[in-house]
Amino acid sequence: MSADNEQAREQLIDLAAQFYDQFELGEIPHMSVPTRTKNNIEYDEDKDVWVYGDRESTRSANSVRGARKLLKAVYTIEFLADQLEEDRSSTLRELYYLSESWDNKEAQFNDQDESNGLIEDLEIVSGVTREDFHMRPEESGATLMGPLHLREQTRRGEREIHCQEDVGEGGYQIPNNPDTIEFLGTDADFILAVETGGMRDRLVENGFDEEYNALIVHLKGQPARATRRITKRLHDELDLPVTVFADGDPWSYRIYGSVAYGSIKSAHLSEYLATPEAKYIGIQPADIVEYDLPTDPLSDSDINALESELEDPRFQTEYWEEQIELQLEIEKKSEQQSLASHGLDFVTDTYLPERLDAMGII
Amino acid sequence: MSADNEQAREQLIDLAAQFYDQFELGEIPHMSVPTRTKNNIEYDEDKDVWVYGDRESTRSANSVRGARKLLKAVYTIEFLADQLEEDRSSTLRELYYLSESWDNKEAQFNDQDESNGLIEDLEIVSGVTREDFHMRPEESGATLMGPLHLREQTRRGEREIHCQEDVGEGGYQIPNNPDTIEFLGTDADFILAVETGGMRDRLVENGFDEEYNALIVHLKGQPARATRRITKRLHDELDLPVTVFADGDPWSYRIYGSVAYGSIKSAHLSEYLATPEAKYIGIQPADIVEYDLPTDPLSDSDINALESELEDPRFQTEYWEEQIELQLEIEKKSEQQSLASHGLDFVTDTYLPERLDAMGII
Repeated sequence: MSADNEQAREQLIDLAAQFYDQFELGEIPHMSVPTRTKNNIEYDEDKDVWVYGDRESTRSANSVRGARKLLKAVYTIEFLADQLEEDRSSTLRELYYLSESWDNKEAQFNDQDESNGLIEDLEIVSGVTREDFHMRPEESGATLMGPLHLREQTRRGEREIHCQEDVGEGGYQIPNNPDTIEFLGTDADFILAVETGGMRDRLVENGFDEEYNALIVHLKGQPARATRRITKRLHDELDLPVTVFADGDPWSYRIYGSVAYGSIKSAHLSEYLATPEAKYIGIQPADIVEYDLPTDPLSDSDINALESELEDPRFQTEYWEEQIELQLEIEKKSEQQSLASHGLDFVTDTYLPERLDAMGII
Repeated sequence: MSADNEQAREQLIDLAAQFYDQFELGEIPHMSVPTRTKNNIEYDEDKDVWVYGDRESTRSANSVRGARKLLKAVYTIEFLADQLEEDRSSTLRELYYLSESWDNKEAQFNDQDESNGLIEDLEIVSGVTREDFHMRPEESGATLMGPLHLREQTRRGEREIHCQEDVGEGGYQIPNNPDTIEFLGTDADFILAVETGGMRDRLVENGFDEEYNALIVHLKGQPARATRRITKRLHDELDLPVTVFADGDPWSYRIYGSVAYGSIKSAHLSEYLATPEAKYIGIQPADIVEYDLPTDPLSDSDINALESELEDPRFQTEYWEEQIELQLEIEKKSEQQSLASHGLDFVTDTYLPERLDAMGII
C-alpha cells in the first residue's frame, strides 16, 4: 500500500475507533459534522475561499435512525479501508449498489442521495478528500493542451506524456484523480481555462497554445473536481497565472466563481480545489460594447442571476460590480464564439492578446 | 491542399456552378433536396440502415424568400470552399456568427437553426459529410482504450499513439474528425462500446481491455458522430465485432440503435456512421431476471418508449420483441452499474465473459 493510501486508511479507521472509545467511556456513540447549509458558510477573507462555520450536527446512536446512520458509516468505512488496502477505486453509484451485498440489511442504503451524503460527511470529518478514498465521479472528461510535460502514475505503470507532442488534436485527458500526476516541466507562461468545446478547438486549431505558451484547459461548462484540482495544482506548483475564458452571462461568471472560490456544496474542499488568484479574462460586459459583439437579450432568469451575484460576497469587488451593473444596463449577453463575427482569427490575433496585455499577463 | 479537401471543395463548387448553368439555360435558379421528414424515411433492408425516400423539396429563386435561401447557400459554399483551401475548420456556431461579417446583409443568418439546416442541406446535396467540409461539432469528447496502434494526422504533424501504452488512465481522446486517423495495427478481438463513464472506468480499472483484448469505446450517452464513425471504421477496416454495453432501459436501446442503424435526422449518413452488425450485449431485460439485479420501476415515459420501439422497424426482430415484451411484463429497469451489487469484479469476471461467450464472440 502506498504511503498516501496508508494515511487515508488510517484516518478512516481512526473515525471508527472513536466509536470504540466512546463505548469504553460509557458514552453513546456519536459523530459530529459541520452543518452544511447556507447559513453555516463563511467567507474566509484571508484565503479568499468559502469555509464552514462553527455550527455542528451530531449523528448519535441515541435513536434507531441515528444508530442506523452510524452503522452505515461503519460499513462504508470498512469498504473504503479495504478498497485503499487493495489499491482499487469505485464510483459513488457503485458504492450504492454494492451495499446490497452487505450482510446486514440495516446497513444498506435506501437511495444514492444517502450514500453520496455519507461520503461527504466522511470527507469532512476525516479531512481526507473523496479522491483519496478512491471514489471516482461518474464523468470527468476534461482535457488539457499545451507545453506541459507530465508523468501520470497509472495502474499499468508510469506514463510520461507531453501535452502537445504526445497527444492528438483532442489533447490530454485529465484523469479522475489528478494527484496521480507529477509535473516534470513546462514552457507555459499562463493557463487559459476555456468554457466551451467550440472555443477550445478554435484556440488549438489556431495554435494559440504554441504561439503564446498557453496551457489550454477545457472546463466543459461547470468544471469537474478533477479539472479544478489540476488547475489549482498547475497554479500553485508551477506558479502559472490562471485566466478563465467563458461566455458573457451570469452562468459563466458562476463557472469562473467555482474555479476561483469554490462552491457552497464543497466548502470543505475550497483549499484543495479553489484558485483564488484566477482572473476573469472575458467575455466581459465591457467587451460586448467595446468589440460590438452580436448579442442576445437578457432573460428574466439572467437578470435574477445577475442581481443575486451582486449580493454574493464572492462578486463584491469593484471590478465585478462595475461589470454586472453595466450588463444590467445594456440588458445584453454574448457568447465567446460570437467573436467569430469579426473572423475566425479575431479571438487569437486581437481579442485575447489585448485582454492578456491589459491584465498584465503578457 | 490535400486530395480529400480538393475533392470536397470541387463538389461544393459544382453545386454553385449549377446555378450558373440554370441562368444560362434561362431557368430560375433552384436546388432540390430530399424531404427530411419521418414519412420520407425508408428502411433499406439490404444495408440494414435508414435512407431517404424519393420525395424532394425545391429551394427556388422564384420568391424573395427562396432567392434569399439560395444567396445564403452561395455565401456558405464560398466560405466552405475557402476553409478547405486554407485547410482550416470551424464550428456550426462560428459559421452563424461569422455570417455577420458578410458584406451582403441578405446573406446573413437569422438564427443558428437556419445555418445548421443549410449545412445539412449541403451535406445531402453534395454527398460530402460535414466533417469533410471541416465543420466541427461543439463537443465531442469520447475516448478509446485498448490494444490499438494508430497514427493521427494533426495540424502539428503526425502523432503515433498506442491506445494503452501511450495514454493515461483517461485513454485516447477521439478527435472531431476520426478520418484523420490511420489504424496501424491492433491486437483487439472485439469492440466494447460502453454507455456510462462509471462503467468505462470500472472496465479500465479491472484491466478488461488487457485481459480480453477489448477496445473500450466510451459512448458518453447518445454518441457523437465522431464516436459512431470511428466505431464503424474499426469494424469495417479491422474486421472487429462491435458490442454495445448500456443500461437496461428503452433510452439505452436507442443508444444501441444509433450505433447500429443511425437516426432519422442523419439518414443521409447511415452508410458513413452506422454499424448494422453491432450487437447488444446488455443490460438485457433477461439479465435483470437472471442475475437478480437491483431495479427501478418503469416510468410512464419508459413504457411509452418501449411501446414505440415495438413499432420501430429497427427493433422488429425476434430478439428485441422478446426482450421488450419481457421488460413490459416485469415493469423494471436496471442500470449497468447495478452489477456492482454482486461485487466490483462481477461485471468483468462473470457477466461480460458469460454474455460474450453466449454471443459467440469469445
